[in-house]
Amino acid sequence: MNNGFIIELHPGMDPLDILRALKSEVPSARVVRAPERAWVVGSGSISPEVTAGLPPVRRSLNISAPYPLASREFQAESTEVRVGAIVFGRGSPVIIAGPCSVESRTQVLSTARHLAARGCQMFRGGAFKPRTSPYSFQGLARDGLALLAEARELTGMPIVTEVLDPGDVELVASCADMLQIGARNMQNFPLLREVGRSMKPVLLKRAPWASVSAWLQAAEYLLVEGNFQIVLCERGIVASENASGRHLDLAALVQLRKKTHLPVVIDPSHGTGDRNMVVPLALAALLLGTDGLLVEVHPDPAAALSDGFQSLDFAGFDELIWLHQRLQQITPKPRRNDP
Amino acid sequence: MNNGFIIELHPGMDPLDILRALKSEVPSARVVRAPERAWVVGSGSISPEVTAGLPPVRRSLNISAPYPLASREFQAESTEVRVGAIVFGRGSPVIIAGPCSVESRTQVLSTARHLAARGCQMFRGGAFKPRTSPYSFQGLARDGLALLAEARELTGMPIVTEVLDPGDVELVASCADMLQIGARNMQNFPLLREVGRSMKPVLLKRAPWASVSAWLQAAEYLLVEGNFQIVLCERGIVASENASGRHLDLAALVQLRKKTHLPVVIDPSHGTGDRNMVVPLALAALLLGTDGLLVEVHPDPAAALSDGFQSLDFAGFDELIWLHQRLQQITPKPRRNDP
Amino acid sequence: MNNGFIIELHPGMDPLDILRALKSEVPSARVVRAPERAWVVGSGSISPEVTAGLPPVRRSLNISAPYPLASREFQAESTEVRVGAIVFGRGSPVIIAGPCSVESRTQVLSTARHLAARGCQMFRGGAFKPRTSPYSFQGLARDGLALLAEARELTGMPIVTEVLDPGDVELVASCADMLQIGARNMQNFPLLREVGRSMKPVLLKRAPWASVSAWLQAAEYLLVEGNFQIVLCERGIVASENASGRHLDLAALVQLRKKTHLPVVIDPSHGTGDRNMVVPLALAALLLGTDGLLVEVHPDPAAALSDGFQSLDFAGFDELIWLHQRLQQITPKPRRNDP
Amino acid sequence: MNNGFIIELHPGMDPLDILRALKSEVPSARVVRAPERAWVVGSGSISPEVTAGLPPVRRSLNISAPYPLASREFQAESTEVRVGAIVFGRGSPVIIAGPCSVESRTQVLSTARHLAARGCQMFRGGAFKPRTSPYSFQGLARDGLALLAEARELTGMPIVTEVLDPGDVELVASCADMLQIGARNMQNFPLLREVGRSMKPVLLKRAPWASVSAWLQAAEYLLVEGNFQIVLCERGIVASENASGRHLDLAALVQLRKKTHLPVVIDPSHGTGDRNMVVPLALAALLLGTDGLLVEVHPDPAAALSDGFQSLDFAGFDELIWLHQRLQQITPKPRRNDP
Repeated sequence: MNNGFIIELHPGMDPLDILRALKSEVPSARVVRAPERAWVVGSGSISPEVTAGLPPVRRSLNISAPYPLASREFQAESTEVRVGAIVFGRGSPVIIAGPCSVESRTQVLSTARHLAARGCQMFRGGAFKPRTSPYSFQGLARDGLALLAEARELTGMPIVTEVLDPGDVELVASCADMLQIGARNMQNFPLLREVGRSMKPVLLKRAPWASVSAWLQAAEYLLVEGNFQIVLCERGIVASENASGRHLDLAALVQLRKKTHLPVVIDPSHGTGDRNMVVPLALAALLLGTDGLLVEVHPDPAAALSDGFQSLDFAGFDELIWLHQRLQQITPKPRRNDP
Repeated sequence: MNNGFIIELHPGMDPLDILRALKSEVPSARVVRAPERAWVVGSGSISPEVTAGLPPVRRSLNISAPYPLASREFQAESTEVRVGAIVFGRGSPVIIAGPCSVESRTQVLSTARHLAARGCQMFRGGAFKPRTSPYSFQGLARDGLALLAEARELTGMPIVTEVLDPGDVELVASCADMLQIGARNMQNFPLLREVGRSMKPVLLKRAPWASVSAWLQAAEYLLVEGNFQIVLCERGIVASENASGRHLDLAALVQLRKKTHLPVVIDPSHGTGDRNMVVPLALAALLLGTDGLLVEVHPDPAAALSDGFQSLDFAGFDELIWLHQRLQQITPKPRRNDP
Repeated sequence: MNNGFIIELHPGMDPLDILRALKSEVPSARVVRAPERAWVVGSGSISPEVTAGLPPVRRSLNISAPYPLASREFQAESTEVRVGAIVFGRGSPVIIAGPCSVESRTQVLSTARHLAARGCQMFRGGAFKPRTSPYSFQGLARDGLALLAEARELTGMPIVTEVLDPGDVELVASCADMLQIGARNMQNFPLLREVGRSMKPVLLKRAPWASVSAWLQAAEYLLVEGNFQIVLCERGIVASENASGRHLDLAALVQLRKKTHLPVVIDPSHGTGDRNMVVPLALAALLLGTDGLLVEVHPDPAAALSDGFQSLDFAGFDELIWLHQRLQQITPKPRRNDP
Repeated sequence: MNNGFIIELHPGMDPLDILRALKSEVPSARVVRAPERAWVVGSGSISPEVTAGLPPVRRSLNISAPYPLASREFQAESTEVRVGAIVFGRGSPVIIAGPCSVESRTQVLSTARHLAARGCQMFRGGAFKPRTSPYSFQGLARDGLALLAEARELTGMPIVTEVLDPGDVELVASCADMLQIGARNMQNFPLLREVGRSMKPVLLKRAPWASVSAWLQAAEYLLVEGNFQIVLCERGIVASENASGRHLDLAALVQLRKKTHLPVVIDPSHGTGDRNMVVPLALAALLLGTDGLLVEVHPDPAAALSDGFQSLDFAGFDELIWLHQRLQQITPKPRRNDP
């Protein structure tokens, strides 16, 4: 069964011509434009008769998955996502680390300095914080963004930070190098649309109850805006013991390799909720060939304003890097995923 | 253990005086104002020594739940939520029905006319639709709101409709009598904040993976804005057979009775995903003393642009009403919830 | 895809002839004998070439489900299961009630007398009790069976009671009219085999984590012994809120109707764990056309040695019967399960 | 709150004296005897007044957990379980490997020979197989046991194999060095009782839906028979993506360290269901300080009669051992589990 189709146009063709020709038969069809490329994409399938009636196109294909642009059927080679000089999806895992929340100048800059010195490649930190309770620390907002920019200046590490409100995308995008869509917002469609339009690289976290298919359909909301710079991030799902969404689903990594061309990183901090488990599960993810890690690090986890119990301290991060390097020496290539 | 506190002020007192006196010791404290009432509320607890140092207040209490304003510990009597002449929480269940999506003038008006004639009290219908796939019908937006307003004009039924984007709250509130926050947006905090500030009555759906506590903390985001006109709506959770979040959690109704003063309605359409199960589970909810039902009805479910498989047709809705009325004759009062 | 096959023989044919002809090609094939009927059944499928090479048989069919004998593909008409004068699966729901555990002569006889007077059709009570803790009451064993026999003598109601140990099947079968296989033993294969061979009617409960398919494959273990007198009993599954396996899966009833010819009863006592929810969910099950109910009733639930919190008292049972009778008057036929 | 108590007797005291003195007040009390030690144990708690009325005992303690003998409150030091010369719980992880099912002499002996040569310490293999479908291969039974004994003879590795039926415990115990209770039988209480009485070392697998507490209460069934030679084995739980019980719960390892003195091993074969994930998750378990691994290995996984998709081939097992050895060189001690 087909769940979607893609018509890829020759350069210079006007996709609206195709759209008009299709619209009455395939109402879901829409135009997707990326630099120098254009497609008409929709759900369902298109029959050979319909295709035959169209002007000559580069290619036209039916896709079995309900996320045509995200699927490997559409694009066999893995997508490389670039954030400054960093590249996700080229075989070498990217280490992203930093505090859950931006709390103070000292905390941010001391953490960034330590991490950069140890080979961390990107810096994370929340300025706008989604918190279960309205009485919890909600983040430093604009002031937090300024501190992140200062950390980048100091260390050269690009910044990834979360955006919560479609109305804040422009503001956050003016500071961040990569926009994070949090687990709670995986199906916040107005936010996905705005972030897609920003053309910034995106880190799209999985909601703790979402199937892999629903997650890739969320990525499709970004793709239809022409934004292909998407990294998926697994951070734990619901399980029968402790149903809080903190069971890291490493099987998703294996599944996603087959289903999508987008890179995938693993967040063992949220995916375990326990700093003692972060390093072991990070190493398992590296052995499985993850495109990167996202880990929470705080200079003094016990004093953190959020997520202290799952944050590594500096020594914990050093242990992770040390083991990662040793592991690379003994297993030069990521594991094969044969049937 | 206490997870929150509430200090209730005498009329005319300035809550900022209390806030200033507390802030250094209880940084989570914040002012909540409702018409003619004001509180200072926060997480954690306040000790008798701190309370003793404050100006005389109406009452001051520590709350064991992490959702102080939503808890029954704060307010023993059930809240009544008014939407026009309709009251939720006064003992008689409110029937809300209508199509999943507003699709056309004929569809909306014929449905509204039929429902009103059968005793339906409120009309539902989506103008902004959150859809898993970007290729699915996304709703008629402004045009949909206008059709809902026309249905109200025609039948007198107040309208509840979903708002997805904090930037759309003003627009949707200008038409709707009650704003729905959908399951996917239960923890969309910017949206909760805007909807709270609108002072419109709110229908707050539960996310399919959320604990009852996380749900009530989402309600607390509305309450801290001074908006107490909240109706909770259960619509299905994740389970081991079919993990899609469609297992109606009627036990939540029993739990919520004890934990919160807010009214609770049940949505057996999303909570089953199967029109054959809607009426039986609706009757179970009525026997358990639900404050209302939210059901999807479509003139021709097979042709619906969304959720057709779970929508009742007119005859199905009539059967529900008929059974509900018979049931009221044979069980005059809702069931007791004794230990 | 086919997951199983059934070859039905003419009366008098020796199934071992067929088995021998098939065995090299289909090693899973085995002989199933019921009074006056015989089959050769296995997993996978048989090709027309293989079938052509066999002696003429009554019919030969490939089955898509991995539980060929339990599937509706094999037998379109619903199976009727007889326990004395009681028939499951003939359209009218069978009410089974009684205490969780047999505790004393007074308790058992007073309960049985009350239930019989109210129209209860079968009596349940546990003599061998599976308990999570070794320090909990483990049942009266043989003495419990004797008390159940006395209750039957007194009231005429047939008895269903649980058997835990394959070595006890003969003992329990010598007293009980129907053998219960509990949720924890749904995949206790030696027990299934012994109970199958006993040729007694069986009540097969679903394990709280089991898919409908795994459950029907457990039934298949009984069927391959030639025992077709099986009633399935749904009693709650694992869900994200409270993962203890107490979310009654009424959707299973709808699914099973399509997939199997075996009757299905609902246990709202274990399926909710809360006596306040038993009657409402029992009525929902009746509206969905369940073939029966299994409910726990105790003269003094607060003093029960097991499951007191979920047992109805006599007044609660009377309410259930009263509502059931009223419901039958107003909805003469069970609900249709149209697509 | 206390959920259990233990009274430890002086050597030579008759526990029945204590039992008689307690029985009227604490009906759950029972005698537990191990070589040279005896206790009276029960659920609930005993008050100082009751204790004061007893003859002088070695110690008497109330336990908060509902599994008193399994709890760390009862015994702070970790239990060492000995199987021949192998010791679980002494700090160095034990590698157990072998095929899912015993299929043939060649398969068993070639596998055992390979594993032993690579440093595998115990051999696993199923002679009695619990299979979802009655048409699946059910194991070689007695013949399988004989082949396992031959493998032991050949390699010196002790044997662990599953027992399904209480009536087979004596037979299986006459061959095996350690008895496995499978996930489906975690709450098969007659089986637990027989295996407890056999005094053989036990490998107790966790049911895929069971809480850690229910699992430890299952262990308590073995302990009350006086059998303290128990190793717990985690093998995957139910999760929202793919609810089949294959999400390895490594967090259980961390939890169990705090709650029980019994050793814990990890089964990454069943816990992932995918041979590509076995080695990475095995290494994560080793980094978390597991007391052992249980892995499925087959000379030709594609031809295996059961579980082929999750079995390592010989090269896969060699990779595991090689990485394990390197890991031991770079992380000499298992990770600390600090708060």
